Amino acid sequence: MTSSTAYQQLEACFTRLHRYAHLGAMAGWDQLTMMPEGGNEARAEAMAELSVLMHETLTAQETRRLLDEIDPASLEPEQQANLREMTREVRDATVMPPELVEAQSLAGARCESVWRRCRPANDWEGFLPTFREVVRLSREEARIRAEALGCGRYEALLQKFEPGLNLETLESIFDDMRQWLPGLLSEAVAHQRGGELVMPQGPFGERDQRRLGERVMRWLGFDFEHGRLDVSLHPFCGGVPDDVRLTTRYREDECLTALMGIIHETGHARYEQNLPQQWRRQPAGRARSMAVHESQSLSLEMQLGRSAAFVRQLRPWLVEALGDQPAFEADNLIRLAQQVEPGLIRVDADEVSYPAHILLRYDIERALIEGEIEVEDIPVRWDESMQRLLGLDTRGNYRDGCLQDIHWTDGSFGYFPTYSLGAMLAAQLMAAARRAEPQLDARIAEGDPGLLLDWLKTNVWQQGSLLETPELIRRATGEALNPEHYRHHLRERYLG
Amino acid sequence: MTSSTAYQQLEACFTRLHRYAHLGAMAGWDQLTMMPEGGNEARAEAMAELSVLMHETLTAQETRRLLDEIDPASLEPEQQANLREMTREVRDATVMPPELVEAQSLAGARCESVWRRCRPANDWEGFLPTFREVVRLSREEARIRAEALGCGRYEALLQKFEPGLNLETLESIFDDMRQWLPGLLSEAVAHQRGGELVMPQGPFGERDQRRLGERVMRWLGFDFEHGRLDVSLHPFCGGVPDDVRLTTRYREDECLTALMGIIHETGHARYEQNLPQQWRRQPAGRARSMAVHESQSLSLEMQLGRSAAFVRQLRPWLVEALGDQPAFEADNLIRLAQQVEPGLIRVDADEVSYPAHILLRYDIERALIEGEIEVEDIPVRWDESMQRLLGLDTRGNYRDGCLQDIHWTDGSFGYFPTYSLGAMLAAQLMAAARRAEPQLDARIAEGDPGLLLDWLKTNVWQQGSLLETPELIRRATGEALNPEHYRHHLRERYLG
Repeated sequence: MTSSTAYQQLEACFTRLHRYAHLGAMAGWDQLTMMPEGGNEARAEAMAELSVLMHETLTAQETRRLLDEIDPASLEPEQQANLREMTREVRDATVMPPELVEAQSLAGARCESVWRRCRPANDWEGFLPTFREVVRLSREEARIRAEALGCGRYEALLQKFEPGLNLETLESIFDDMRQWLPGLLSEAVAHQRGGELVMPQGPFGERDQRRLGERVMRWLGFDFEHGRLDVSLHPFCGGVPDDVRLTTRYREDECLTALMGIIHETGHARYEQNLPQQWRRQPAGRARSMAVHESQSLSLEMQLGRSAAFVRQLRPWLVEALGDQPAFEADNLIRLAQQVEPGLIRVDADEVSYPAHILLRYDIERALIEGEIEVEDIPVRWDESMQRLLGLDTRGNYRDGCLQDIHWTDGSFGYFPTYSLGAMLAAQLMAAARRAEPQLDARIAEGDPGLLLDWLKTNVWQQGSLLETPELIRRATGEALNPEHYRHHLRERYLG
Repeated sequence: MTSSTAYQQLEACFTRLHRYAHLGAMAGWDQLTMMPEGGNEARAEAMAELSVLMHETLTAQETRRLLDEIDPASLEPEQQANLREMTREVRDATVMPPELVEAQSLAGARCESVWRRCRPANDWEGFLPTFREVVRLSREEARIRAEALGCGRYEALLQKFEPGLNLETLESIFDDMRQWLPGLLSEAVAHQRGGELVMPQGPFGERDQRRLGERVMRWLGFDFEHGRLDVSLHPFCGGVPDDVRLTTRYREDECLTALMGIIHETGHARYEQNLPQQWRRQPAGRARSMAVHESQSLSLEMQLGRSAAFVRQLRPWLVEALGDQPAFEADNLIRLAQQVEPGLIRVDADEVSYPAHILLRYDIERALIEGEIEVEDIPVRWDESMQRLLGLDTRGNYRDGCLQDIHWTDGSFGYFPTYSLGAMLAAQLMAAARRAEPQLDARIAEGDPGLLLDWLKTNVWQQGSLLETPELIRRATGEALNPEHYRHHLRERYLG
C-alpha cells in the first residue's frame, strides 16, 4: 500500500469516528436536557457501548498499521497536521484498556444521574458511593497515562484537555496568580464599595428571557439553522459543529445571569460553528483545546459582553423584553455586569473571584488524583479554601459547595485549570485584536461587534487544530501565553 | 465451543445491537422534533454510518457461525424463541448488500428533509428527484429480498413489517374489505345525516392542550419517568422501551385531533414500556410486528378512546383544561369523536373512512414497487382513487394528497397495510377482552380503564416477540386473525 492510500484509509476511519461521535454528542445532549430520569440506565449502557466501539476503532491494529505506513513527508502541510492529531488520539486511546473505558463511561453516567438527585437535596453522603467509584477509576486512568507519557499522574489527566501543557508551566502561572489575586480581589471590592447598586426586580418570565437571549445570540452571529438553545441544570455547549446545542438555566428573580451565560456559551458555539469546513470530519478540524475553547466563551462574555460599550447596546433590548425599571439604567447595568462580589457558585462568579474558584478546585482535584486526600476529605478542604480565598463560610452547604459542578461526576479531573488559562488567553487575544483593528472598540460602541468576531474567526475558529496551541497563540498574538494581559485587563476594568 | 456458550455470545452480540439501536432511535427522534434544518446532512451521515455498523454486526461471519453452532434443543423454550427471532434478523440483513443499506439510509434522510420543505409548499415537482432515488433503491431492495425469500417483490417488503404475512392472505382480506367498505361508509354518513353537530370554537392554546394530553396519558398508565410528549410535523412514537418518546401536533382551531392522536400514540407507548423486562435487550423482547403495534394504538384510540363511555370520562377534563362551551356537551362530544366524514388526511380520518386511505396507498405502493407505475404516475392514481373511494377531488393538492405522509420518504413501502390489519386485530382483541372480563365496559363507564389495560398487558405487551404473530393472536383471542370482528365493530358503532 502506498503512503497516500494509507492516509486516505485513515481519513475514512476518522470520518467514521466523527459520525459515531455525532451520535454520542446528541445522546449526551439529550441526557442533560430532555431525557426522563428513568431512561438513564439504558442511556448509560448505550453511551458506554459507543465509547467501547470508538475506543476499539481508534486502537484497532489496522489503524496503527496504517499510521506506521504513512510517510509524513509525502503529505500536504494540512494533512501533516491532521496526521499529528490522529497520532495523538490513537496514542491517548491505546494506552487505555477497553474495560476501563467502559467502566468509566458507565460509572460517570450513573454518578451524573445520582448527582442530579443529590445536589438539590444537599445530600453529600448519598453522592459519595457512586462518586468514590468514579475517583477510583480516574486514579487508575491517571496511573496508566502517567506511565505511558512519562509524566506525573495529575499532569497526565491535564494533558487530555490541554495537550502539551506541563504541570510546571501551569504551577508557575497559578503560583503567580496566588500572589496577586487575593489582593486584587479585595482592592476591587473596596473600589466598588459605596457605589450605589440597584438590583433588578423580578419576576422575569422564562419565555421573555429566552427571547432576549436568542436575540443577543443572533447579534453575536449564532446560526440558528445549525443550532438551538435549551435549558439544563448546568449550562453547557454540546452537539456537533453542524448542529450546536447550547443551554442555560433561568431564574425568575434574576435576568442577567442567564443572559451572560448565554453569551458565554455563544462564544463556544461560534467557535464550533466556524471550524474549518473542509476539515469538518477530521481531527484537524476540531476545536484546538479546552483552554482555547474557554478563551472564546470568555472573549464573548467577559472581554466583550461585560464591557461598558456592549452593556449600553444591551439596554434597549433588555427594556423591550422585560420592561423598564430603575436597575436597567445604563450606568447601573454596567455596574451590575461588572459587580465584584465573592460568592459560592463558580458559574455565577464575577470575573475577579472566578480564578479563586479554579485555584480551589485545582488544589483539591490534584491532591485527590495524587492520592494525598480521599473523597471524604473534600468538604473540609472546600470549606477551608473558600474561607481563605473568598472569605465565605460553606460548612454543611454541599449543594452550593462541592456538589455544585458536574465535572467531577464523570471523572473530568484536570479540566478546571483550563477555565483560567482560557480567561488569560481571552485577554491576550483581545489585546491583539485591538492592535490589529484600531476601530474595534469604537465599532462595538456603535453596536457592531463584527470586527472582533471576524478577527476571532480568522485567527482562532478557522484554524481548528491545524496548529498546535502554542503556535496558534503565537501567530494570533505575536507571543506565547502571557498572563500579564489578564492581570492588566482586571486592573483596568476593576481598579481603573 | 458448546452450544450454550455460542448462545451466550450471540446474546451479547444482540445486546450490543440493542444499544446501537438506542443511539439511532434517539438521533431519529431528535431529527424529527428538535433538530434545526441545517443539521440534517451531518445527522443523515451519522445515522447511515450506524446503519452500516449494525448491518455489519448482524451479518458478520462470526454471528452466522455462532447461529450455526447452536443446537436449539439445548435451549430453554424462551431462548428458542429468541433464537428464532435472531435467526430471522440475521437472514433479513444478510440478503442486503451494505452499500444498499447505506444508500437507503442516506437517501431516506435526504428525502425526509426535502419533504419537510416541499409539503407545506405543495411542491410535488421539488419532491420528485429525491423521492425517485428512494423508490429506485426500494425496488432494488424488493428484488433482492424477493429472490432470497422466494416470494413476490412487494410481498418481500411487506414481510419486513409483518413477518410471515403472505400477499394472498392480505389480498383476500383487502378484497373482502373492498366489497363492504364503500357501502358501510355511505350508510354511516347517511345514518349520521341530520344529526346536529356543534363544532368546538377555538382558539385552544398549545400549552392547555398539552396539559390535557398529559393528564389523559397518565390516566392510560403512561409512565413519564420513562418517556415524554413532544411536537412533530407527523405524530409518531419513538425512542426506546425505557424512554418512549411520543409526539403530536396541535392546531389552534381544534382540540380533539391532537388529543385523539395522543391517545393513539399512548397505545404504542404502553406496549413499548411494558415489553418483557427480562428480554429487554434481546429480539424476543421487542414488539411483535407493526400490525400488532397498531392494534395497541387502535385499542386505545378507537376501541376505548372514541367509545361513548370513555368520552363521557373525558368531558370534565376537557372543560377544566379548555373551558366549557356548547360543543363539549357530552352527547355532542361523542358525536364529534365518532363523526364519519370522508376527508383528505389519513391521520385525521375517522375509523370508517380510514381503511379507504389504506387501500389507496396499498394499491399505489404495490404497483410502484412491482414496476407497474412510475413516481410521476402517483398524483393521477391518487386523485382517481380518492374520487372513487372517498368521493373527494384532490387534483393539484399534493400537500393534503400524496405528500401528506412521511412513510414513503424513507422507503417504508409495505408498511401501510399494517394499519388496517391492526384495526382488525384491535377489534378482535377487544371482543376477547370483553369475554374474559365481563365487567370491562361497566368499569370503563365508571372511569377505570384498568381491566382492559391489564388484559392487553398480559396478553400482548408482556409477550414481546416470544410468540409468533398467529400464535399470539390465537392464544389471546382463541382464533386466527378474523376481520369479521372489525366489520361487526364498525356496524355496531356507526349503524347501530
